[in-house]
Amino acid sequence: MARPLDYGEPVLLWEEGKGRTFLVTLEEGGVLHTHRGAIPHDQLVGKPEGVEAISSTGQRFYAFRPRARERMMKVRRRTQIVYPKDAGWLVLALDLFPGARVIEMGTGSGAFTILLAQLVGKEGRVHTFDRREDFLENALSNLARYGLLEQVEAQVLEAGNQFPVEDVDAVFLDLPDPWLAVPPAYAALAPGRPIALIVPTAEQLKATFGALEEAGFVALEAVEILERKILVRRREGVRPFERMVGFTGYLVSARKACRKAP
Amino acid sequence: MARPLDYGEPVLLWEEGKGRTFLVTLEEGGVLHTHRGAIPHDQLVGKPEGVEAISSTGQRFYAFRPRARERMMKVRRRTQIVYPKDAGWLVLALDLFPGARVIEMGTGSGAFTILLAQLVGKEGRVHTFDRREDFLENALSNLARYGLLEQVEAQVLEAGNQFPVEDVDAVFLDLPDPWLAVPPAYAALAPGRPIALIVPTAEQLKATFGALEEAGFVALEAVEILERKILVRRREGVRPFERMVGFTGYLVSARKACRKAP
Amino acid sequence: MARPLDYGEPVLLWEEGKGRTFLVTLEEGGVLHTHRGAIPHDQLVGKPEGVEAISSTGQRFYAFRPRARERMMKVRRRTQIVYPKDAGWLVLALDLFPGARVIEMGTGSGAFTILLAQLVGKEGRVHTFDRREDFLENALSNLARYGLLEQVEAQVLEAGNQFPVEDVDAVFLDLPDPWLAVPPAYAALAPGRPIALIVPTAEQLKATFGALEEAGFVALEAVEILERKILVRRREGVRPFERMVGFTGYLVSARKACRKAP
Amino acid sequence: MARPLDYGEPVLLWEEGKGRTFLVTLEEGGVLHTHRGAIPHDQLVGKPEGVEAISSTGQRFYAFRPRARERMMKVRRRTQIVYPKDAGWLVLALDLFPGARVIEMGTGSGAFTILLAQLVGKEGRVHTFDRREDFLENALSNLARYGLLEQVEAQVLEAGNQFPVEDVDAVFLDLPDPWLAVPPAYAALAPGRPIALIVPTAEQLKATFGALEEAGFVALEAVEILERKILVRRREGVRPFERMVGFTGYLVSARKACRKAP
Repeated sequence: MARPLDYGEPVLLWEEGKGRTFLVTLEEGGVLHTHRGAIPHDQLVGKPEGVEAISSTGQRFYAFRPRARERMMKVRRRTQIVYPKDAGWLVLALDLFPGARVIEMGTGSGAFTILLAQLVGKEGRVHTFDRREDFLENALSNLARYGLLEQVEAQVLEAGNQFPVEDVDAVFLDLPDPWLAVPPAYAALAPGRPIALIVPTAEQLKATFGALEEAGFVALEAVEILERKILVRRREGVRPFERMVGFTGYLVSARKACRKAP
Repeated sequence: MARPLDYGEPVLLWEEGKGRTFLVTLEEGGVLHTHRGAIPHDQLVGKPEGVEAISSTGQRFYAFRPRARERMMKVRRRTQIVYPKDAGWLVLALDLFPGARVIEMGTGSGAFTILLAQLVGKEGRVHTFDRREDFLENALSNLARYGLLEQVEAQVLEAGNQFPVEDVDAVFLDLPDPWLAVPPAYAALAPGRPIALIVPTAEQLKATFGALEEAGFVALEAVEILERKILVRRREGVRPFERMVGFTGYLVSARKACRKAP
Repeated sequence: MARPLDYGEPVLLWEEGKGRTFLVTLEEGGVLHTHRGAIPHDQLVGKPEGVEAISSTGQRFYAFRPRARERMMKVRRRTQIVYPKDAGWLVLALDLFPGARVIEMGTGSGAFTILLAQLVGKEGRVHTFDRREDFLENALSNLARYGLLEQVEAQVLEAGNQFPVEDVDAVFLDLPDPWLAVPPAYAALAPGRPIALIVPTAEQLKATFGALEEAGFVALEAVEILERKILVRRREGVRPFERMVGFTGYLVSARKACRKAP
Repeated sequence: MARPLDYGEPVLLWEEGKGRTFLVTLEEGGVLHTHRGAIPHDQLVGKPEGVEAISSTGQRFYAFRPRARERMMKVRRRTQIVYPKDAGWLVLALDLFPGARVIEMGTGSGAFTILLAQLVGKEGRVHTFDRREDFLENALSNLARYGLLEQVEAQVLEAGNQFPVEDVDAVFLDLPDPWLAVPPAYAALAPGRPIALIVPTAEQLKATFGALEEAGFVALEAVEILERKILVRRREGVRPFERMVGFTGYLVSARKACRKAP
């Protein structure tokens, strides 16, 4: 049975026409104020997801629970985040599944952590690490908003230190110097399992490949993902948008080899 | 505890140097014959994933359980498949989670079905439909190879007919004429939940947008995803590959609005 | 012998560091005021091209004669312009050469006219047409700034009307409804010679292909050109820019066939 | 007056439907044999450019003089060539014009030389250099086919040696180690004029930027150009091609600064 919207839930209001979105947590007596009028939260509670809401100035909105995609984009940012276009590729590189135990090194603002937590589910576990405690605090507050704290463990750790977990199903690195974390990642991974990471420059990409090969990773791959938004309008016709994101980072995938068979 | 490789398991052999891959199901007495020598399956059984295997001619390989990504690419193909580069975006558009119940219309060769089944897990359910029984049979045999039949239900259905399930968490369409399946998709979705689809031409994209809007979907988006592989070589340096896939399809995402609040 | 900079010449001042550029026409007593200080024109006159100029606040600039590329980007704009990334492709599609006689329909702001005029040279001729007299006036004033009026003839013309010239070496169309100008273009072209054009949407592209085939053009091709700027920094390393132009238009090339050999 | 096709001319035969092209030099009694039938050269001579030609098996072709674009792609190749997608950008970076005197270092197969020679015209001059005499011989034979020898001077030269010309309007480098040729390029260029070059890897790009800055070049830019071919079919609709060229090289543009004003 579809659950109606309730107080305490994060809700995304999508503005008809412009497509702008507003994320609010529903509160008794709360009001969303936009440049196109106000919407009282009480008007949404008890209604099904997807309900239309007319603002005080007559603008139509629709109320949705945010997908992981929107949750990621709407985190309070203290750092660069992993963009959805890259996150999709990484999900496949990391071969996530319900119940998986994964390491994330470089929690940042916790955007990708939200997706990891959703996909491993309550039976899984995300062990996320960052060298900066203030980043972790911000990330945990982003995760708490979506009730994802249960499957996440966060801890301060310097890049290069051993991870306090082992036999994990996947490791993801998002660091300025990912090569430092490559040997500990090898140690923490179950045999054969994947590592994935994002790096911003060609030089770092090369250095990371060197570190991966030296540590005992094989099947190395690097890509970049370009997402082009397409404008579809009844009268003017179909064409790509005039502006696009040109680059976010190089994505890398590899797998832990066992050089000496037991 | 990491499970050693066993008979009956699909295993991917990755060739050092060239990066070619070979998918085999391990059998007693089985032998993989490649242009770079032979590898007896018995040599792999009981070993940890990621183990190295030297062929009869001295070529080094590594043995991995295939990720969903490789499983998708290696299905026996009767149709075009959804490529990993697009599948990642679709996972986020469909907002998958463990336990989700999803509809797929246009099973095709079952490549994307493999990923859906993995991500919804044993508590979830993939209801997949195709108008051609022979496609379904081939897809089910691809799924059986990975032990994913438990969470998949396959059924013959003409595009445009009602789906025999309701209140589902997501709908994915991969059809030559997706607009036919849009009204049944609206009927089957839980309020507010997402639909996603892939279409090959600008004209079909426009027709699909029209059908989505008419059926009551909002927050429509269309993109195309370009994946550029990057060559990282110690001596020659870093640069993109000389050839790439130029296009697979336009990807669309939308959400079910409830026009009349109850 | 290299000519020193002189009064009356357009000069581009390139700001060291940021790479911003300022276009001025040198005048006696003139001063360029920037946010990084002032540069008197007199300081540049008589100096070789490429000379450095230190502003009143100590910022270093360099003075260059603008290339066609910069002239195009710096026109006074009354319309969308043809961007350099597309202009390069079009030069090859139109197979320009010194002395060529070419038609341009849709003068717009005259940006591409500047490039055409430079490449056909004083022995060549650019016949440019627009339905709006005010656009032509603005374009001619842009051309006058670079002394290119000699090889350009501009005239008001409605799309669809016959061109008052014949046996031309190439035709370029930049119109919202290019199909209207296709039959007159066929009539005006010398046998076998190329037409090229730019259109903004997939639907217009299709309609234009139909019109070209019907009029007797063959060897039709359509492309889009993506230009990615690359950031090269000594310390941070090499990577593409974070933002890019996602789309400007579809480019088309075709050649006039002679269906009935005389 | 349009000139009819004549013996001794290179002619491109464009196959209707598939779009394949065949380049022949018309000879008395010559015959083009294709998989879709034969076409005697005599059938084309005296006819206008663009004439249709029906092969012995009934396939329709059209006969065109090749544009520089097709001449470039059809050179006898001894090396990688500069592709038209990049050549267009380079024409604008080099700011070519009728009568220009330009240096090309790294003649290779002479593909780009063909375009340079066409655009500077008979009043201009292309000084092209290569360290390998056999490359130069092949390139000159490619140029001779199009009657372009008059405006081209070719000479053997090692990268790093001074060019035997000065005050040139533009320099183009296409070398594995372009940094060697940067100081001689600076010496040969007229003040303020542009240099452009192509390099294959990120590391070479960085090394080249360093050499350019050290030699006294400013306004450095790097880009890569992606060309996507679009399929336009009446029934199936509009979409990009499934395959594309993913990378050819990084393109660089810069201008000669005069650090010390005389």
